[in-house]
Order: sequence, then C-alpha cells, then structure tokens
Amino acid sequence: MKIQRKSMRAFVLFASKAVTTHEFHLNDLPGSGGRMDLVARCVTQAIWLSNEIRKDVAVYCTLNGPPSPPKTVGFFSDKLKRVSPDERSIASWIKKALENRAEKEWKKVQEGIFVSGTDLISLVRELKNACNFELYLLHPRGEDIRKVTISSNPCFILGDHIGLPQEIEEEIERMGARKISIGPKEYLASTCIAVVNNELDRRGME
Amino acid sequence: MKIQRKSMRAFVLFASKAVTTHEFHLNDLPGSGGRMDLVARCVTQAIWLSNEIRKDVAVYCTLNGPPSPPKTVGFFSDKLKRVSPDERSIASWIKKALENRAEKEWKKVQEGIFVSGTDLISLVRELKNACNFELYLLHPRGEDIRKVTISSNPCFILGDHIGLPQEIEEEIERMGARKISIGPKEYLASTCIAVVNNELDRRGME
Repeated sequence: MKIQRKSMRAFVLFASKAVTTHEFHLNDLPGSGGRMDLVARCVTQAIWLSNEIRKDVAVYCTLNGPPSPPKTVGFFSDKLKRVSPDERSIASWIKKALENRAEKEWKKVQEGIFVSGTDLISLVRELKNACNFELYLLHPRGEDIRKVTISSNPCFILGDHIGLPQEIEEEIERMGARKISIGPKEYLASTCIAVVNNELDRRGME
Repeated sequence: MKIQRKSMRAFVLFASKAVTTHEFHLNDLPGSGGRMDLVARCVTQAIWLSNEIRKDVAVYCTLNGPPSPPKTVGFFSDKLKRVSPDERSIASWIKKALENRAEKEWKKVQEGIFVSGTDLISLVRELKNACNFELYLLHPRGEDIRKVTISSNPCFILGDHIGLPQEIEEEIERMGARKISIGPKEYLASTCIAVVNNELDRRGME
C-alpha cells in the first residue's frame, strides 16, 4: 500500500496495551483485547459523521500489547465499505487485520483497512517525510488548539489512557511536532479526536 | 428517585429506535438493540474523562423502539460504581434496567442507574420545572454554542441519527429551549456530547 499523499487529515493512536494477536474476544474488548474498546472508539470518532463517513481521513492505530508488538492497523475513510461505527464491528476488523502477518510493508486486509508491523516512530516519520503531513502532538500541557494555526495536511498523534512513553514523545517533538491541547481536562482519546475534528470543520478544512 | 437538584449538567438523548425490552443481544447492539451502540456511546462521552468519571453529570436516554416505548434510563455520574466506558458494558446496564417494569416513578436499578416509563416531553418538563434546568436543544441550524451564554444548570437535548420528531422539537422550543449548534456538519450524537462537554470545561463550568 502507498499511503495517500493528497490533502487529508490523519490521526495516529498509540495503544499501549492493545493486543497484537487476533485471539482476543469480541465480548471482552477491555480485558482480553487490552482496551481494544478504546481503539475502536477512536476510529469511530475519527471517521464517522451522522449517517455518513468523512472523506479523506486516515486513522493509524499502533497496537503495543502482547504477544508481538508493534502492529499498526490503518483505516482510510474513502475506501471503507460496509462498515458500522459500533465498537464490536470495528474491533472485528482489527481482529481480521491481526490474522495477517504484519510485515514492514502495508498489507491490504479489505477495502480501506491495512496492517503492517511498523512502530509508531517509523510511521510518524513516514507520514511526515514521505506524505508531507504536519505533526501535532495532543498533550494536556500543549498550546490551546483554538489559538494554533493548523496546516491543511495535519497529522494528530495521541496516546491512550496511559499516554505516550516519554522517549517517544521526545522523539516526535524532535521531528517538529507542535504540542497542542484541546482543553483544561484530560479526556478520553476518542473525545480528543471528536473535538479536533470539530475544530477543523469549523475552520472549513477538509 | 428524586432527580438531583444541585448544579449539574444534563444530557437527554431521544433514541428513536432503541428497544424497550431487555431481550436484545449484547453481540448485536446496532441490529437487535435498535442502535443501542449509539445510546451507549452517548453515555460514555457524557460521563467519562480519561481514567475518571465526571462529577455532576446526568444522562437520560429515552428509548422509543419496540415493544413498549417509551422507557427512560438515567445515569448519574456521582453515584456510579464499578462501571466501564465500553459499549457492551453500558448496554448491559441498560439491559438490566429494562428487566424492570418502567413505571411513572423512577426505580433504582443499581447505584447511579434508574429507569422509568417517562416520555421525553414529561422528562424535559420535569427537568425544567422541578429541577431548574435551562434547556438547550442541539440542532444543526441552531446558534453557534461558542457564542451562546450557557447557564450553570444546563440540560442539552439531542436526537439520534434520525433526529427528534418535529412535534417534540416544537414542544421543547415552546418550553423555552434555546437551539444551539456545535459546528458546520451533522455529527454523531456522541460527538455532539463530547464537544458540548469540552466547551463547558473551557468555560470553567462544573
């Protein structure tokens, strides 16, 4: 897969405990999935509007739980077909993606869904260098997003309930990421994505 | 149950197809639950912060699907115990609530969760008159929330993917509700709640 290069918005989620095997139970996403419910909610908030799917949104979920991290599952809104926004459906696509070997190259799982063995830093570097994304790191102590100029090709990086490891955060900052915050509280990752999308919509950005 | 009267924020969701029996399948919330996934996502976005539950939030989900509408399930964040933010968990509490007869009076299902047979209009009237809430109707063509003064005791009313029936919308407007919008697109109900909560947080409202 070639990552799309046209103007779009991207979200990168670091899911520190999400499992990297398809052998998790769809009936227990928080436990056996390593908070796969959180991952699924992020995909929903990134991609769905009421009754339709957004155009030109990519979501990359880097799973770092056992047994063989990292694995990254990518969702590309323009290509998705027959998809539903509920957690179980999204988790079932992730499960299907994890049935594949995760190699260095992206592998297509089904329309709009890809998997690879890339780690977060390599992924973010590729998004910046090969795909021309501007990087924004969501962080409780970042600048207020409402006061920040956002490029037309933004990539927002965020952690889960545990947050990004400090060395990854520092490496992403060295790549030029701007630290931004969405508000005065620490929010669910899915809430962060919802608010970022709304802010971009208000600016007329597609 | 007495609805709490101290300063808090409330959300009222009209779920037009959500079933009013406990006999739906937790493995198929969209289908057998009548989009119970949507209801569950709204509860999550209303109540959860990262790693903690908000204080002083009430969420009322008025279910209007078959076989015996309406039934309203209320969640009170201050009282909830041993709860998780994933759709399946929240749907399982709704299922448990629906095992009870829904009478005119509220019945406690477990700590922080109540059920009654109230309809949306009666509920909203009670929230306004007995509980002193100011009403705000979320609507794609409402005033921009960022430009609207929000009272310290706000109640936000919203529809699902189908929206509120026109006669209900008109009745709520006659009760003095102000129509507000969160942005230029039509969003998932859960996204609306996420953005409203963020806006109130930014204003320092608890």
